[in-house]
Amino acid sequence: MLAETGLFVALEGGDGAGKSTQARLLARRLESTSYDVLLTREPGATDVGAEIRRLVLAPETGTIHPRTEALLYAADKSEHVETVLRPALARGAVVVTDRYVDSSLAYQGGGRTSHDGLEAMLRWATGDLRPHLTVLLDVAPAEARSAGQDRIEAEGADFHTRVRDHFLALAAADPEHYLVLDARGDREAIAAQVWARVEELLR
Amino acid sequence: MLAETGLFVALEGGDGAGKSTQARLLARRLESTSYDVLLTREPGATDVGAEIRRLVLAPETGTIHPRTEALLYAADKSEHVETVLRPALARGAVVVTDRYVDSSLAYQGGGRTSHDGLEAMLRWATGDLRPHLTVLLDVAPAEARSAGQDRIEAEGADFHTRVRDHFLALAAADPEHYLVLDARGDREAIAAQVWARVEELLR
Repeated sequence: MLAETGLFVALEGGDGAGKSTQARLLARRLESTSYDVLLTREPGATDVGAEIRRLVLAPETGTIHPRTEALLYAADKSEHVETVLRPALARGAVVVTDRYVDSSLAYQGGGRTSHDGLEAMLRWATGDLRPHLTVLLDVAPAEARSAGQDRIEAEGADFHTRVRDHFLALAAADPEHYLVLDARGDREAIAAQVWARVEELLR
Repeated sequence: MLAETGLFVALEGGDGAGKSTQARLLARRLESTSYDVLLTREPGATDVGAEIRRLVLAPETGTIHPRTEALLYAADKSEHVETVLRPALARGAVVVTDRYVDSSLAYQGGGRTSHDGLEAMLRWATGDLRPHLTVLLDVAPAEARSAGQDRIEAEGADFHTRVRDHFLALAAADPEHYLVLDARGDREAIAAQVWARVEELLR
């Protein structure tokens, strides 16, 4: 379901695609136009979420079953939706999140487990709150800059290719709510394309 | 789905009903009859699960949305099922767990949120692994001994009455797989009733 007030924009894509940068640029642009803006991210934007993120990503946690991991990320989303996203949307804010449900579908569904049941679980976890717009910053895995050493980033190239394909398939299935951009472009040019689409939605 | 090998027995009921005691007595009896026995519990039987349990129950965690809590407990179950319960059942063991899915349905469903979607989420989280027998130790909330101070135990009497009613409803809906016993009875007498039913299933 789409929120009835506010505007909910998600930035999605693989590691190194520039999501955080574009989320910041969009938030800054919105603020300079005097919108009430909430810039947030998944996972880890709430106290409970930060604990969950630490638990999932810490190398010392060792192996976690893929379904367990999906449920932990879903718990992070549940708390984020109820305590951060919905209150902001209810007061009419523009919410910009760096990652949302598509990341779980792409990483846990595309990369690690079957999609069966995962989407239904995530819809339940988020109360089926959906973005008005998802900006997918698409980049081939080899072209993404190496961004760190955590458990997910250490996966192989096949995994990241499956993740990318899953992101693209989600966008293809619902073109009205997606903007797919080549992440290799100039960051100001990408920001301008994002802003053009968001500006349309704000009218 | 019922496991094809092994025997899976869950002890359920409110706090102070004597689940841990009866689980231990059953495991001891099985061991003395030379069965391969795994005595376990939820939440917190795995490394990840212990972290999750700490996170949910610690008073310093503060408020957690009921849906978030349900997902965290489901993550504990997922890891427990895949790394503990299924391997033991696959080798033919008798698995005795102190709490399983019914506790989540009763505490998170009966007590805190609507049942909608919760059961489907838990079925997904556990790969729909169901006990061959659930022993429900039934006791009126006021008669359970006060067992501690954590967040759940500090809830009011109405909450515990709803939890109890939910446990009883689950048993009533599937009598073939439940044994409901009055938890106020003598503990050796209760253990004998549990053993009689388990012995039947072992034949």
